[in-house]
Formats: sequence, C-alpha cells, structure tokens
Amino acid sequence: MPGFLTNLLRTLQNRRGGDMHFLCHRLLSERGEASQTAIAQEIISLYKTMAPERRLRFFEMVDHEFAPDEKAIRQAAADYEKSPNTQTLAALSEAVEAPRQELIRRINTAPGGTETLVAMRGDLLGVSHNGNGTKFEAFDADLRHLFRSWFNRGFLRLERISWQTSALVLEKLIRYESVHEINGWADLHRRLEADRRCFAFFHPALANEPIIFVEVALSQGITGELDPLLDVKAAVDDPQKADTALFYSINNCLNGLRNVPFGNFLIKQVVVDLAAELPNIRTYSTLSPLPRFSRALRDKPSENGFTPARLGRLLQDFSRELTAASGRRDPVEALLRLLEKPLDHRKALAAPLQRLALAYLTKVRLPQRPGHRDGKLYDPVATFHLSNGARLESINAFGNLRPYGLEASFGVTVNYRYIPSELEENHERFVRGQIQVSRALAEEQKAVDDAWK
Amino acid sequence: MPGFLTNLLRTLQNRRGGDMHFLCHRLLSERGEASQTAIAQEIISLYKTMAPERRLRFFEMVDHEFAPDEKAIRQAAADYEKSPNTQTLAALSEAVEAPRQELIRRINTAPGGTETLVAMRGDLLGVSHNGNGTKFEAFDADLRHLFRSWFNRGFLRLERISWQTSALVLEKLIRYESVHEINGWADLHRRLEADRRCFAFFHPALANEPIIFVEVALSQGITGELDPLLDVKAAVDDPQKADTALFYSINNCLNGLRNVPFGNFLIKQVVVDLAAELPNIRTYSTLSPLPRFSRALRDKPSENGFTPARLGRLLQDFSRELTAASGRRDPVEALLRLLEKPLDHRKALAAPLQRLALAYLTKVRLPQRPGHRDGKLYDPVATFHLSNGARLESINAFGNLRPYGLEASFGVTVNYRYIPSELEENHERFVRGQIQVSRALAEEQKAVDDAWK
Amino acid sequence: MPGFLTNLLRTLQNRRGGDMHFLCHRLLSERGEASQTAIAQEIISLYKTMAPERRLRFFEMVDHEFAPDEKAIRQAAADYEKSPNTQTLAALSEAVEAPRQELIRRINTAPGGTETLVAMRGDLLGVSHNGNGTKFEAFDADLRHLFRSWFNRGFLRLERISWQTSALVLEKLIRYESVHEINGWADLHRRLEADRRCFAFFHPALANEPIIFVEVALSQGITGELDPLLDVKAAVDDPQKADTALFYSINNCLNGLRNVPFGNFLIKQVVVDLAAELPNIRTYSTLSPLPRFSRALRDKPSENGFTPARLGRLLQDFSRELTAASGRRDPVEALLRLLEKPLDHRKALAAPLQRLALAYLTKVRLPQRPGHRDGKLYDPVATFHLSNGARLESINAFGNLRPYGLEASFGVTVNYRYIPSELEENHERFVRGQIQVSRALAEEQKAVDDAWK
Amino acid sequence: MPGFLTNLLRTLQNRRGGDMHFLCHRLLSERGEASQTAIAQEIISLYKTMAPERRLRFFEMVDHEFAPDEKAIRQAAADYEKSPNTQTLAALSEAVEAPRQELIRRINTAPGGTETLVAMRGDLLGVSHNGNGTKFEAFDADLRHLFRSWFNRGFLRLERISWQTSALVLEKLIRYESVHEINGWADLHRRLEADRRCFAFFHPALANEPIIFVEVALSQGITGELDPLLDVKAAVDDPQKADTALFYSINNCLNGLRNVPFGNFLIKQVVVDLAAELPNIRTYSTLSPLPRFSRALRDKPSENGFTPARLGRLLQDFSRELTAASGRRDPVEALLRLLEKPLDHRKALAAPLQRLALAYLTKVRLPQRPGHRDGKLYDPVATFHLSNGARLESINAFGNLRPYGLEASFGVTVNYRYIPSELEENHERFVRGQIQVSRALAEEQKAVDDAWK
Repeated sequence: MPGFLTNLLRTLQNRRGGDMHFLCHRLLSERGEASQTAIAQEIISLYKTMAPERRLRFFEMVDHEFAPDEKAIRQAAADYEKSPNTQTLAALSEAVEAPRQELIRRINTAPGGTETLVAMRGDLLGVSHNGNGTKFEAFDADLRHLFRSWFNRGFLRLERISWQTSALVLEKLIRYESVHEINGWADLHRRLEADRRCFAFFHPALANEPIIFVEVALSQGITGELDPLLDVKAAVDDPQKADTALFYSINNCLNGLRNVPFGNFLIKQVVVDLAAELPNIRTYSTLSPLPRFSRALRDKPSENGFTPARLGRLLQDFSRELTAASGRRDPVEALLRLLEKPLDHRKALAAPLQRLALAYLTKVRLPQRPGHRDGKLYDPVATFHLSNGARLESINAFGNLRPYGLEASFGVTVNYRYIPSELEENHERFVRGQIQVSRALAEEQKAVDDAWK
Repeated sequence: MPGFLTNLLRTLQNRRGGDMHFLCHRLLSERGEASQTAIAQEIISLYKTMAPERRLRFFEMVDHEFAPDEKAIRQAAADYEKSPNTQTLAALSEAVEAPRQELIRRINTAPGGTETLVAMRGDLLGVSHNGNGTKFEAFDADLRHLFRSWFNRGFLRLERISWQTSALVLEKLIRYESVHEINGWADLHRRLEADRRCFAFFHPALANEPIIFVEVALSQGITGELDPLLDVKAAVDDPQKADTALFYSINNCLNGLRNVPFGNFLIKQVVVDLAAELPNIRTYSTLSPLPRFSRALRDKPSENGFTPARLGRLLQDFSRELTAASGRRDPVEALLRLLEKPLDHRKALAAPLQRLALAYLTKVRLPQRPGHRDGKLYDPVATFHLSNGARLESINAFGNLRPYGLEASFGVTVNYRYIPSELEENHERFVRGQIQVSRALAEEQKAVDDAWK
Repeated sequence: MPGFLTNLLRTLQNRRGGDMHFLCHRLLSERGEASQTAIAQEIISLYKTMAPERRLRFFEMVDHEFAPDEKAIRQAAADYEKSPNTQTLAALSEAVEAPRQELIRRINTAPGGTETLVAMRGDLLGVSHNGNGTKFEAFDADLRHLFRSWFNRGFLRLERISWQTSALVLEKLIRYESVHEINGWADLHRRLEADRRCFAFFHPALANEPIIFVEVALSQGITGELDPLLDVKAAVDDPQKADTALFYSINNCLNGLRNVPFGNFLIKQVVVDLAAELPNIRTYSTLSPLPRFSRALRDKPSENGFTPARLGRLLQDFSRELTAASGRRDPVEALLRLLEKPLDHRKALAAPLQRLALAYLTKVRLPQRPGHRDGKLYDPVATFHLSNGARLESINAFGNLRPYGLEASFGVTVNYRYIPSELEENHERFVRGQIQVSRALAEEQKAVDDAWK
Repeated sequence: MPGFLTNLLRTLQNRRGGDMHFLCHRLLSERGEASQTAIAQEIISLYKTMAPERRLRFFEMVDHEFAPDEKAIRQAAADYEKSPNTQTLAALSEAVEAPRQELIRRINTAPGGTETLVAMRGDLLGVSHNGNGTKFEAFDADLRHLFRSWFNRGFLRLERISWQTSALVLEKLIRYESVHEINGWADLHRRLEADRRCFAFFHPALANEPIIFVEVALSQGITGELDPLLDVKAAVDDPQKADTALFYSINNCLNGLRNVPFGNFLIKQVVVDLAAELPNIRTYSTLSPLPRFSRALRDKPSENGFTPARLGRLLQDFSRELTAASGRRDPVEALLRLLEKPLDHRKALAAPLQRLALAYLTKVRLPQRPGHRDGKLYDPVATFHLSNGARLESINAFGNLRPYGLEASFGVTVNYRYIPSELEENHERFVRGQIQVSRALAEEQKAVDDAWK
C-alpha cells in the first residue's frame, strides 16, 4: 500500500477508532470516493478480525443504516403515480435501491473484496439461522441480487480438475465434498483417474476457489450401485470403452453463494465438453441420493406427504411378502418393522422401497408458501434435476449401502437422465407440475398415481 | 455445440424465422430457461449480422416490450404505501426493475455475451446520437446499471502493456489511442521502451480487449512540452534516473462502456504499481490537453463562459504587448487577431494564453441541468483529474505544437498533479466547487477570480 | 547476485583486471569449480562488451590455450594400441577432447550462457570469413559438437506463431525473414491470417528467440506463383476449403547455429500438426527459390556445371523460337540476349528456362572436396528438400517476378513435394546420387540426362 | 502419428518383427535418417514393454554392436601420430566416439526420448549391480557423457514447490524423499508451510518430474535436532522472524542421473533466491545425517578406518564415564556395550559419540582406487557439502532419535554451514585434503588429529 493510504488509514484509525460505522459511511461519502479502495481494504481487514458477536452488531448496523429511505420512496412513488415517465421511474428505482448495494459494490473494489463479501453472506445466513429468523432478509436479498449479477454464467470458467491440479484446490474438493465423503488423498486420486472426470466452475475474482463441482464416472451403461464406483481399489477402465457418463456427486462449495444458481449450467456445459472429448459417450445420467426419503416417511403425515391411507394403498401390492418377512399383518407396520434392519430383508423390501421412493420423488411436496405458485418437491435433488429437464430414469433399492445412505434413504438411489433433445420440454412440463419418467417406470408411476389420490 | 442445441435452433429458425422478438421472449420464458445458453447464443449471432436499420427496430422492440409494467408498479407502490415492510419493498423493487435487465443477464450467459452486450450499448448510444435523442434512455440506463456492477474494479485486472504483449492487443492500442495518435508500430514501440510505461485494465470476460489504458513517460521533473516526449527517435533514458511519472495519454477503448467509471481506479493503481517498481519516482503528474479551449473562446458568450467583459478584464494586464504585436487597440480584438497565426506571435501570446487557459479550466462551466447540483466544468479532462483529487499544477503555452494541439487549444497544455496525501481533501473541495491550484499558480488564480466576476 | 559473488568478482577484477585469460583458466580450475556460475557470468558480461578486435584475440586465446594436449594424446594412443580396452579407450577419449568443451559447458551454467555461446559462434564464423580462413575450425567444431547435442530435436518446442504472439517475437520474424522480405507489420499480419500458418522451433534456454521458422500458405492445389501469395491485400480464404499446404519460406534465424540441423524436423513436425488440425489438407509442397541459378549460368564453365556444349544440347529443341525472338542464330547466345530483359520475352523463354532450371537443380554440383563422398548439389535449397526425401514436383517459369527473383533465377520457382510414404526411399536414393522427379517432369528429365553427358 | 509413419512402422514390424537390433541399426542408417523420429518412437515404445531379461540382451547388443571400431581407432591414431593436425585430430575424435552416442542422440529426437533414456540408464545401473559388474561401463559412460551435457545447469529451471504445486509433482516428493520419509499428505503439507521452503530443479524435457529437490526450514539459529523440525503438529513460525535457513533434506530423484552433478548448483541457487526473498536470513546451514557412521564403527578395521588403536586413543578422555556407565574397563568395549541401548546412556555417550563422529567425518576414507588421486571421504554427505565449500559447523549427539537415525548413526546429526565468502577457498582446501571446521570444533579436531595418527 502506498504511503498516502497508510497515512490516511492511520489517521482514520486514530481519530475514529477505525470502526465499521465510520468506515462504511465514509466509503459512501463524497470524501471517501477519492480513496474507495483504501477504505474498502480497511473494512475487509476489520471484518476478518471480528468475533461473531461484533459481526452480528455489524450486520444490524448495515441492515439499519443503509436501508432505503421510506420517505424518499413514498415521495418518488407519488411522483411516479402523478406522472409515470422515464425520469420518475428512474427516481423511484433509485429510491427503492438500498444504499447497502452501493456500499457492497464499493467494498468489492478492494483486493479480496469478492471473497470477503461471499464469506460475509455465509456468516449472515449462519446468523439468521441462529434464531435471528428473517431479521436480515433484506440485507441478504441485496447481497444475493448482486451475486446473481456478478456470478452470471458468462463470468464463470469451467475447468477440469485432475491430478495435475494444485494441492491447494484439491484439498478443497476433499473439504467441500458432502454427498460421498472423500476419505483422504488416495480416495481423491481414484476419483481423478482415467475413467473419472471432475469439473468445477471458477470465478475470476475467487482464485483457487471452486464454487461448484461435479464428479463423473465413465461407465458401460447406467448403474445404480455406488459401491463399485467409489471403491478406491477398483481397476481403472479404459475411458474409450465407456458409453455412459454418470454424474455421481454435485457439490456447491460456498455457503455465501446459496441460491445463486449455476448447477444447471455446470451440468449442461460438462455434457458439451464430454461430448467433444469422448464421442463414444451416448448416455448422460446421474447417480443421485434421496436425501430426505427416510425423513419423509417418518414425518408427521400431512396432505403433502405420506398419509397412512396413501402408505397403505402404495404397499398393498406387496402385503403378502411384507407380512411373511415381518410377521405383521398390516403392510405399513410390516414395512416399518423391516426397515429397522433393512439389510436383513433386502428381498422383501426391494420392490416396496422402489415404489415408495417413486412416490416420494414425484408426489411429496413442501408446504405451500404464500406468493409461490406451487409447493416445490420435498426432495431438493429431484427438484434440481427435474427442473433442469432431466427425466426420472430408474430407482435402485440398496444402491447405497454406506451408513449415510441407509440412514437417509434405506439405501435407495436414483438415476436422473439428461437427454439433450428433451430437456426443454421436460423443464416446461415440470414447471406445470408434471414429472417425466422413463418407460420402464411408467407402469409403476401409474400405480403411484392411483395410490396417492 | 451439441446436437440437441443445433436441432433446437434449427427448429426455432424454421418455425419462427429465428427472429429476435421470438428469441428474446423465449429466453425469458419458462421453456427457455432450460436452454438459456443456446438461445442466448442465437441472439448474439443474429445481432452480429444485423444491419443498422434492423438494429434500430430491435432496440425499439426491447425498449418497448421489456419495459416495466406501469400497472404493476402502481399496485406495488400502493401496497408499499399502505404497509411499508420488507415484503412490499421487495415487491416494489421487483416491479420497477425492467424485464430487460433479466434479458440482458441471460444473453450474457452465452460465450461472447459480454462482448456483444458492450458492443450493443455502443450501437445504442450511436443510434441515440443520430437524431433519436433520449429515446432509449431507459434501455441505456439498464445496460449501464449492469455494466457498473459487472465492471466493478474488483473484477478488473491491471496489466502492463509492453513489447512482450501480443500484437493482437498492441494493434488495439494503435486503434484506440485518440489523444496523441500512434503513427504505426515504430511509434508504438517507442512508447513501450524502458523509459515509458503503459498499463491497461482488462476484464476476464473480454479477452485480448483493453478497456482503458494509460501511457506514462518517466522523466526528470514535470514538463509541459509534448514534442520531445512523442519523438520516435528520442534517446531512451534510464528509468532508474527518473523522478517523475507523466501520464500523457488516457484512453477509454469501448464506447459501450461510456460512463462506467474506472479511470480514477486506473491512475491510482498505476501510482501504486510504479511506486513499488521505481522507488525513485517522487512526482506523479499528467501532461494533458485542453480539448475545448478554443471552442470555449469561440462559443457564443453565456453566463457560464467568456463574456466580452470577462475577456476584457482578463486581458487587461497584457494589452500593451497585444496591441504592439497586432496593431489593434482593443486587447480582445488584438488577441483574436494574433490567434489567427499563433506560432508567429509566441512571445506576445504566451502570458495571455496562460491566463485565459486558467480561467477556462477553473471558471467555464457547462449549462446547469435540471436535477444536477451544479454546472460541471466545461473541460472534461479537468473535470476528470480535479474530481479525482489532483491539483492544477501548471499551464504551458505552446506545449503542444501539433496541428490538433493548435486547433483545440492554441498549443496550450496543462499538468494535473497527483499528490497522494491531498487527493481526498481536494476531491471533497472539488465537489463543493473549489479547485486546488499549485502555489506557482496562486497569484494568477487571484487575477482570474477578480476578472471573472 | 548475492554479496559473496559480488565480492569475489570485485577481487578478481582488481587483482587481475578481470581479463578473459584469467577468468577462463580459473573457471576450469579446482578453485573455480566452487563458483562456476559467478565466473561464467563474468565471462559472459565481458564478452558482450568486447570490440571485434578483442574478440579476435579472445578466440585465438581459447583456440590456443584450451586445445587438447598433443603429448597426452600420443601417450593415450600408445597405451590404447598396446592394450585396447575400456580403460585405455576412455583415457584416449578424454585426451582427444579439447578442454574448450568443458570450458564451454561451464560458461553455459550461467544465465544467458546459451544465448552468448550461440552469439559467440556467430562471431567466430564471421571472423573466419574475414580472411581467417580455417583458423578456428577446431574451436568451431567444438561449439558445433555441443550445439548438436544441446539443440537435439527432443529439446526443441514447436510453436505456432500468430497474431497472438508477442511483438518481441514477431519483430524477429521481420528481421530474420530473408527469402521473401517482410515489408512491415501489415505484410506480417497478412502472413498470419486464417489461410496462412507460421511455425517456429524454440529452445528452452533461448527465450523469445525463434531458431528456425517456416511460413505456410493454405491453398487449393500447388501453385508456382508467388505474387498472389505474397499480396498483402489478397482476400483471406477459408482454411477449411484448402487442400494443399505450401511451405513458401523457411528461415534459419541464428548464424551461430549454422550446420546444426533442425530444418527437416521442422517440416515433418509441421506436416504432422497440420494434418491433425486440417484433415482436408492432402498435399504438402514447397514453393521454393533457386538461389544460385543465374550464378550457375554465369559461372565459368567447369565439369560440374553448364559447359557450352551442354548448354547447346539443352537448348537445341528451342533454337527456332530463341532465334526468332532474339535475332541471334546460336541458341546459347540467343538465350543470353533474351535474358537481358527476360520479362519482354516470356513466351520464348519459358520452356528453355524450365529445362535449364531442371538441369541446374539435378545436375550442377559443387566441386568435389577431399574426404567427401560426392559433390553436393550446387543449389542449397534443392539439397535440403531432396535430402529430406521430397521429390521435385514442378518448375515454374516466371513464378517470381520480384526483382530479387529475376536477379537470382530469372523468375523461376520450383515446388518440392513431400509425400510422406515416399520420404524414406527418396532420401536413400538421394544419398546414392539419384533424384526423384514427378511423372510430369519425367520426360523433360530424360532430355536433360541426354544433354548433360 | 501421420499415416506414412504408421505404414512404415507396420512394414517394419511385419518384416523384421520390430526387433531392437533391426530398429537401432536402421535408425543410424542412411535410410533411417529420413524418419528418425518415427523409428526412435518405436524403439521407445518397445523398450518400455521389455521384460528385464530382454533388456539385458538389449544392453548387450548395444554395448557390443555400437562400440567404436578398434581398427578405425588404430588407423586414426597412426595418422595423427604421423601428422598431428586439426584434420587428423578430428578424425581420431570421431573414431573414438562410440556410435552408441549418435544412437542415443537419435532416440532422443522422439517425444518421451529423454525420459526413456534416463530410465534406461537407471535400468542399466540396476543390471550392473546385479552381478554384471563393470560389464556395461562403456555404455554407461556414453549415457553419462551425454546427460552431463544435456542436464547442464544452464538448461535446468529452479522452481519453488509449494501447496500450489500440482498433486502429480507433490506425490513424487513423497515417493523420492529418502532422507526423512514423508508420511503422507499431512506431513508433506507441513513441510510446505510458511516457515518451510522446498525447491527443485526441473528439466524442460522431463515435464512434471523434479530431478533433485531440497527441503529447507526457516528457523532462529542453527539446530541439530530433527524432531521439532519434522513434527507435523508444530506451530508455524513467522518466516520474517527467522535468521537461519536449514537445509534438512536433499534428494536426487532419478537413478538414471546418478553422477550427473547438480546438487551444488541447487544449494547455491537456493541461497541466492532465499537471500532475495528473505533479507533477514543471515545463516545458511544444513542439518545432515551421517549415513554410514555405525557401519564404519562396525567395519573390519583397515588403515582407512577405525582401527582398535585409534578407537582407544579417541575414547581415552572419556574412559571413566564409559566405564562407570557400562561396568567395562576397556573404553572401546564399554562404548560398544552402551551403544547396544544408546538411549539409556545418553549422558555418558554424548561426548564420545561427538568425538567419534568428528573422526568419522574427517578421517575415515574409502579405499584408494587406482587412477584416483586420493581416497574420498567414507561419508558421501560430508564429501558432497565439504567439496561444495561448506564447513563442518557442529556435531549433535542424539539429534535424530528416529529408528533410522539410531540405526545409521546412533542418533548423531551434523551441520555443514555455507558461508558464501568462504566457499571457494574451502573447496580448494578440500581438494587438497584439508577440512575446514568451525572455531567451536577446532580443539576437538586437534584431539582427533592426535588420536588418529
């Protein structure tokens, strides 16, 4: 930092204790305009050293003091109503934009700005979850609004992650992987061998920081079984002989970018890149978890979920086997009994689990929220892929035998298939509330439809 | 492009003639969401092939069909007035934002998007100047709003331009240099020798495209004379012996980024970088043109400019010499006479030109505009540097003897000096309407103040 | 440079005047081994400042003082003769290697070493041509021996040169192009457009320094005419529509690397790379000059060249036309007369010039030298391509109408064609003294064979 | 590979079984010259697939068939004796050079050539150790001769290895580290933290392949204790506060480059680079093992080593303590007894071990070999650093408590200190047989000198 900035900051710190309140106001002031970068730098440094308690007060300060001015909005709104034209609209637009937004933009001018702001939103969301509810909703909306603009897909760079990548980036994969935990470097190395691919989006302002990544296995045909795929000792296959790309793990890396969408761009871009590299690949599919399946079964029944009546109807076809295996007559009770030790009853459970999973994926929804057209699907992964235009390809009982797989979904896995020519129509259908399933699932789907009513 | 996108586009083109109206609406539609990038790509391709006439119609279409909905704004404003809270504010915010903004953000998702959008704004501004007045003001405001966010200084990369830079970038310097034209590669090479520096800002989404650049000469002391500095044959000095960095040319490269400010960031960053590289540099100054000086003298007099009375008072001190050289008694007439052939009357003209230039730089203002606090200075270069916090250091008669220098300012040049520790205060003063001059100019400034009343 | 080396060198310089004699001996001494790099650095710096006269003395010193020791060789030879085994052979090997080689290797350890040594050999060759004849033949042989090892093809990197390349490298193309001079940057730019290619070999130790480069035009069919190809204003063709790659200029850049062969590797590698990039290219050919054709005709006749008898027999078939055009009866005299203004007699001259050129390319040889198997072809370009295994494809009268083309070869150009599957056999034939020509030239070749006897 | 090469190779393989004998001869033949790279490529591929047994036969073939021709040498030697001049010397030079060298140079022209040749020499040395003694000495000498030229320091690139380095390179550090084993990625990461440095030499033809690397700890003062330094959990110190750089591990990576010296260049370059980065570093020292100390004590006594008489005299000063601790009267016997469980007798053993280690490092030598001036030191690490001009700074009993440290040297470690201004003189002294020790060791050294006689 050149001498004059050091001097300036020393003065600032002496005079005013370098506190955030002063710095933020100064950054937005006339005077501060001449040394934006230096003041922004100071805000960034201070922010990093703040303890959670001080951060909370900082959030409150920004939330309160850099909100739009109600009086000004009312005035601008009145002017617009009187005479709706370009000028009055522009004035209204300006009045409704929180000064926070300009504050955030100015903080971003300093080195490390973007990184800090993303971390700040992560902290803000953390704080909100800790009993502060919707307290900072408006502040968060401002950050998200800017991030959606800054992290526009046009500014993201897709990079292949390989064993040639720096350890600094690779260790972040280990840290951020939350679908199928990476158990150290040997596990990571296996996931980067010749029959695997890994791609991440990077943003130019966040060096060495993947913001989302996807892990892909090249295979022969679609599979629903995770164990061979995650086996560190599995022989490495020839990628030229594969005909299928299986997306088996997609991870958002930064909390601060929640609800800034780039996952769909990632998958579509990876499809394009794989098609160019490996013309032998014909099928693109996921191998996905059902993260809330067991929770949905255990939830208190609501009209959006598994009511006892629905459960009963869904299981009716399998009642004989369930009873035989459990000794219980009622199929629902029988099922719950067997699910206590699912691995002991694979044969009896496979078919009922598949049907229930299908119902879970296509029927169970979140409670309706005011102002939202429709209750979203309860399963976030299903929402993501089906909304992208993928179709539900197959459901695999006991595809994931790892503890977390049994815990979350009794071991069920699901494949969503991306058929490029169908994406657009599937997406539109999904928006209208319809879900596209493969031919193989069509009949089962009918059974589910009938049982759900 | 993968097969499915090609198919999609072929279909689109067949069905609807691939027209922009259809494509833009589709891009914002539910259906389009699944294939944003492909549709955006098509819009970009189409845009590039459009003739000016079609572009005008395209602008009108976007301006008209993607504007915010008046009724919705009124409703949201009414809701807010009734109950001003986070939700109603967010709703109002959403209502006032033109759908154009989302359209622009989606176009940006395709490769080449940013480049095309910047070019599009360049075209839009060109069209507006061609007799379409303020027709597209709102559309332009939307583009500018996004560009200010996207081209935030935090996303720009300062790069030194040297003879090691690619010819592709270097030829753009030749093209974009408009202050002191670069006469071919030899001229360019001289400007990149050891006693010169050149820095540019680049944006990650615009490869090989400098967006603003500054040319610097390393010298001993501040000079006001351009010729030695631009002499292609001048001996190359040892940069270690220089004590001064002279910013002698600053150029914005892309019309489409007009009024997106990064010039002040550029200069301040370059000062920081030069200070790190060359600790012997103590003085940072510009060598700048007065692009509208002669125009201001020739303009019809207004209260913002050179009225005859002011001119008379300003020249009073020099009347004897002016009369002696021209044979005219009235000093104003005498001056105008001599300015017909300024180079023949250097001695008599030097002092009066310096005083007039000082008056021009510090007093002449643009006409006041409604809604703007104050008439800006008439000279845009002065506005830029003084607003940055530089001070007016010296005025040099006959510093630029090149035809364009004589034409625009009778050969006068000016130095603005950047003294890091004074920038902030000077900037604030400037905002209040005061202009800081060097001690050497203080007395002269008093004379100007007295004469201007 | 760290303090201790600076001290060391200051000491060296004070004590011994820093002279080369001392430095070179020290570099090879026990003591010097510990600070090789520093001493080597000093030798490099000193060498660069030397005037030609001092360089000559330096060459003499190295030539004389770092030659192998005759007595030691005799002794080692005697030992070997007595008992030829691994040890005595190794000792003999060591005795015959000039200490110069180790000196050169040690100079190379310092930064800039390779560059300086290559320049040194350039100087040495220059000095040898200036009346010092074969004086430094042994010194040169040592440098060349090491360069052949260091510049092994395995260490060279082929790079495409384009408009994206740095101006620093591009200006070297302008400087080094000696076949068809590049007239400034516009000319260079045209040679790097989409329908042209340029490739160079680089060596890791010579940054920004192409060591050989080839310029390629992508065209439809083989052409013998230069003008359209070198036309700066020529429209740029679509490279996807070309079926032929024409190598129209190959330039060695550094004198110091003379007789270090990489030209053949360059062409073959470029063929491989072009084949990968542009599968539509089927034909690889040169468009080459005949740099000594007119000289060969003007030379005093020898048994290796155009004796009057041979000339007469070669021209016999065309005597009527030659006489008609020139008024001279003797065809040789007629030819020479017409060649005074060749452009005025294109029709009459075309056929005889083609025949003479064919004779020149395939028959005229350098005088035999003792110890060499065979007189090499008089034309160095023919030697290069035919030895590479290319075949003589076609001869074009008036293909090069530029002054230097008329001067060197009365405007004749030649195409050598590289047919990958024939290279090996053609090369072997060439070594045995046979030259492969295209079917189109076969009959003409027979006429030349008959006339030459 | 272009079609013609594929064809050629198919032909080769069909006709001759693609065997190495044929390929190598062809590569050196006239015919082969035209397609060197392709044939070399085939040799490389074949070599890689060879089983050890076939490799041995291949080595025998090359050794035998590409040796220099005895008759030709005799003739050239006779010619030279008769008339010693540039020509006859050149001819003799050529005759003594084994055709193997040209063969090796040609193999190197193909991609992967250098890598394969280095691996080949590694194999050759391995085979020689397996009971083939000096069988391939001449072949090995040819490879080494070329490698010394190719791996000249001027062609090596020093790179800092950090956590930003690719995993591909980092895992090689783990593999190649043989002084202090790296226990996985966490251990490696600790060695690349802010208070550690790691540098490696790379060669342009060996991508991603460090050829030698050094690990450095930044510390306050010289230490002889390894444990704190290798502790994975140790707190990371501020590098700005360090005054000493400790080179605690130096590793050659490739067997095939044995006896190609670059270690001394590495250390000196790292000193230069560290001095530039961290001006606070004043002391450069190693922390080194004594890899053969315990072996020297256990060896059958010879005149070059620890004879009983010498041992007795060396230990005389400590006899009381040794006896007290062990119950044995004879100090040598006492020592040996205590060394059975050295950690139980640290106090009694410290002083005697230091003296013995000093004697070991400065007195024990390898048996004299015919043709070598002097027996080299028995300890290879001491030879390396002392020959570089370092001085023996201190000897630390129980500096290395790890099993391999106790095994090899009863836990003793040693510091060699690099004082830049003394390197040259120390090196020269060392060549003359003198060893420079620090003042602190001077008296002890005298005791050792007296005892050794």
